[in-house]
Amino acid sequence: MLRDAVVDLDDAGRIVHCGPFHSAPEHPGPIRELTGILLPGLVNAHAHSPMTVLRGMGGDLPLMRWLTEVIWPAEGRLTPSDVYDGMVLGSVEMLRAGVTTSAEMYFHADEVARAVLDTGARAVLAPAVMDVPGWDWRKMLAGVNAWIDADGLRSGPGERIEVGYGPHSAYTLPPAALTEVAAEARARGALVQIHVAESLPEDVKQREEFGSVPALLEQAGVYGGRVLAAHSVHLSDTDIALFAANSVSVAHCPGSNMKLASGIARLRDLRAAGVATGIGTDGPASNDDLDLWEDVRLAGMLARVATLDSTVVKAADLLLLATRGGADALHRTDIGALEAGRWADVVHVGVDDPAFAAGLDVPDEQVLSTLVWAAGSRSVTDVWVAGAPVVTEGEPVLVDRRAAQERAGKVTGRLLSA
Amino acid sequence: MLRDAVVDLDDAGRIVHCGPFHSAPEHPGPIRELTGILLPGLVNAHAHSPMTVLRGMGGDLPLMRWLTEVIWPAEGRLTPSDVYDGMVLGSVEMLRAGVTTSAEMYFHADEVARAVLDTGARAVLAPAVMDVPGWDWRKMLAGVNAWIDADGLRSGPGERIEVGYGPHSAYTLPPAALTEVAAEARARGALVQIHVAESLPEDVKQREEFGSVPALLEQAGVYGGRVLAAHSVHLSDTDIALFAANSVSVAHCPGSNMKLASGIARLRDLRAAGVATGIGTDGPASNDDLDLWEDVRLAGMLARVATLDSTVVKAADLLLLATRGGADALHRTDIGALEAGRWADVVHVGVDDPAFAAGLDVPDEQVLSTLVWAAGSRSVTDVWVAGAPVVTEGEPVLVDRRAAQERAGKVTGRLLSA
Ligand SMILES: [Zn+2]
Ligand SMILES: [Zn+2]
Repeated sequence: MLRDAVVDLDDAGRIVHCGPFHSAPEHPGPIRELTGILLPGLVNAHAHSPMTVLRGMGGDLPLMRWLTEVIWPAEGRLTPSDVYDGMVLGSVEMLRAGVTTSAEMYFHADEVARAVLDTGARAVLAPAVMDVPGWDWRKMLAGVNAWIDADGLRSGPGERIEVGYGPHSAYTLPPAALTEVAAEARARGALVQIHVAESLPEDVKQREEFGSVPALLEQAGVYGGRVLAAHSVHLSDTDIALFAANSVSVAHCPGSNMKLASGIARLRDLRAAGVATGIGTDGPASNDDLDLWEDVRLAGMLARVATLDSTVVKAADLLLLATRGGADALHRTDIGALEAGRWADVVHVGVDDPAFAAGLDVPDEQVLSTLVWAAGSRSVTDVWVAGAPVVTEGEPVLVDRRAAQERAGKVTGRLLSA
Repeated sequence: MLRDAVVDLDDAGRIVHCGPFHSAPEHPGPIRELTGILLPGLVNAHAHSPMTVLRGMGGDLPLMRWLTEVIWPAEGRLTPSDVYDGMVLGSVEMLRAGVTTSAEMYFHADEVARAVLDTGARAVLAPAVMDVPGWDWRKMLAGVNAWIDADGLRSGPGERIEVGYGPHSAYTLPPAALTEVAAEARARGALVQIHVAESLPEDVKQREEFGSVPALLEQAGVYGGRVLAAHSVHLSDTDIALFAANSVSVAHCPGSNMKLASGIARLRDLRAAGVATGIGTDGPASNDDLDLWEDVRLAGMLARVATLDSTVVKAADLLLLATRGGADALHRTDIGALEAGRWADVVHVGVDDPAFAAGLDVPDEQVLSTLVWAAGSRSVTDVWVAGAPVVTEGEPVLVDRRAAQERAGKVTGRLLSA
């Protein structure tokens, strides 16, 4: 933790210097003084954020009834414009919480990208690829290939859009499809984001045939490129070793896993094995918001109670999981830290809150404990992405929050009345 | 859930009617129209709120080092005025989150009471009674007896202060002391609040001799009156049956139990056995804030993942645990619900938030899901206790929040520099 620190940016929005004030290079640019805490923008390592328009729908129905009776029928009626509206609200929600990057797996991904660009956020898109009735996985795959071949892997101001691949899971795609998706992704240096071992009932067949989903993915030749395995709850020691050996990263989603009763991922063991691990919210229809700080705390609490060891993750570890860990999980080295060369995705946390009554003139670990365990999203006041202001005094700069709420609310209303 | 509902109060601050608008009795009093959601004030069933002045101190040290090296030495230096300052900040924090009543176990309880009265909150005090070096449990007990005998069980405007007994635990008091404390409490109809089976290492001797702490409490004659067992993590089926048979209630503290790696309380089984159960934050030095909504969500998430059953507690159940369940846990029938005859401890939740984009014109269970799982404390705008406004537009009415922060911050600063 630095005190009296300075962050210097170039005109493109990259950090050229971050360090103590006295070591800062002189420069003629404008200076903004801030009295709170500066952090790198948080990275939501697994989300389906357009699902804000489905939030709370179906209440607390059991998972399969909720999916088949409520969510899938509603998703079947979502238009591209609905997905845009849902993602604008999702981006607004994340940016206000200081989450500057999210890994998004959803359909109509071009609308997701448009929404992300409009709100000023950053995203790694994983357009869904699935072999389920009504969808043609080859067409979906061809669409992603064509997108990257036309626009490049990263595009937009501040390279805020990255396109990757979202093969949904081993239970919605045959091994041959997984092989092909991974090969196309590797050829383009793109991220593969896939659900792995979220709940035990889902992968029964895959586990019977291949032993485990990580083993299946190995046999299908999925490893070797940038692979992000969301959830990864039910892993054996062998699975974890396989991930570590193949640089497969994990998006740990404790809130979703707890609320949906999926199980407890082995955060301690993943970290001990050196598996790059970030934190994800999963979709806001199930979790039910995009406040990554809550999942950060849950990650810590769940790891501690599951191991009965309160020292297994400290506040500083948790903050790192949500920032640098998230960047590592996305196999990115240009976000997730306040370091020269990375994009200036920056969050300012104010200290006008009972949690920070003692101010910042206390030991570092006390500041970090308060920040992670007690303050979190509500204390975020300002956010920048690639150096550009996107949240000021708690409100989004580039879109009108109330208009975004109204548009998303209308989508929900239409879905409910159908 | 009522729509277009009316809450009518009498001059003392009790509810005389709560029901649909068309059924409301006519009356000449002032009317305030609100567009959001009205709830009964939440009940924090177990807290040591003055510990706001110790928040984050010692960071993430292991429990015993944290207690012996940081917290106990710091508590030894707390003056009565420090406890007052800590409690004012704690009350401010709880009231802003819509928590109107808390069960407080701490020393200098007269200062806790003064702070609660000054902020407008309601509390059930459990002045600590302990047999540890430097403290005389008989003197502590005599102090509580004298307090109740002088002021009555409940006092202050709106009967906002109730005095009870806080025998700390079975491992800090001999059985004979527990017997005597319980007898004095029963004689006065007062609440006994005691830590039970929080972590396995603490009660080793008691379990060796008596089988379990609940069994010890039975043999010591503690049951029969109003007994609230905080934590109650490590209970056998027999223990749960013992609690149910003796109307012992439980304050479930999932956030504290997870963060301190104490274990997972059996919420499902407690509820199934008919044990009155509320939710508690425990002290803000360890948990690290007094946002009961977070513990409400944790209670649901933890119960679901521990049983691998996502239907075990629904949003409505969780809201009830934090309101009526909290009142039941405190053995109180005059708070915890918007019902004629109860105190008008009322919370207004605004809906200008991405979580409520769809508004309130959606099915009840969707409103409840959003309220519990996505909105929570940040959406609380106004709070009344015994009909009197204590929070308006998010800020406390009777005390200055920034002044409260400054005073508490100075205490922390003094403790750190000692
Ligand atoms: Zn997912
Ligand atoms: Zn306690």
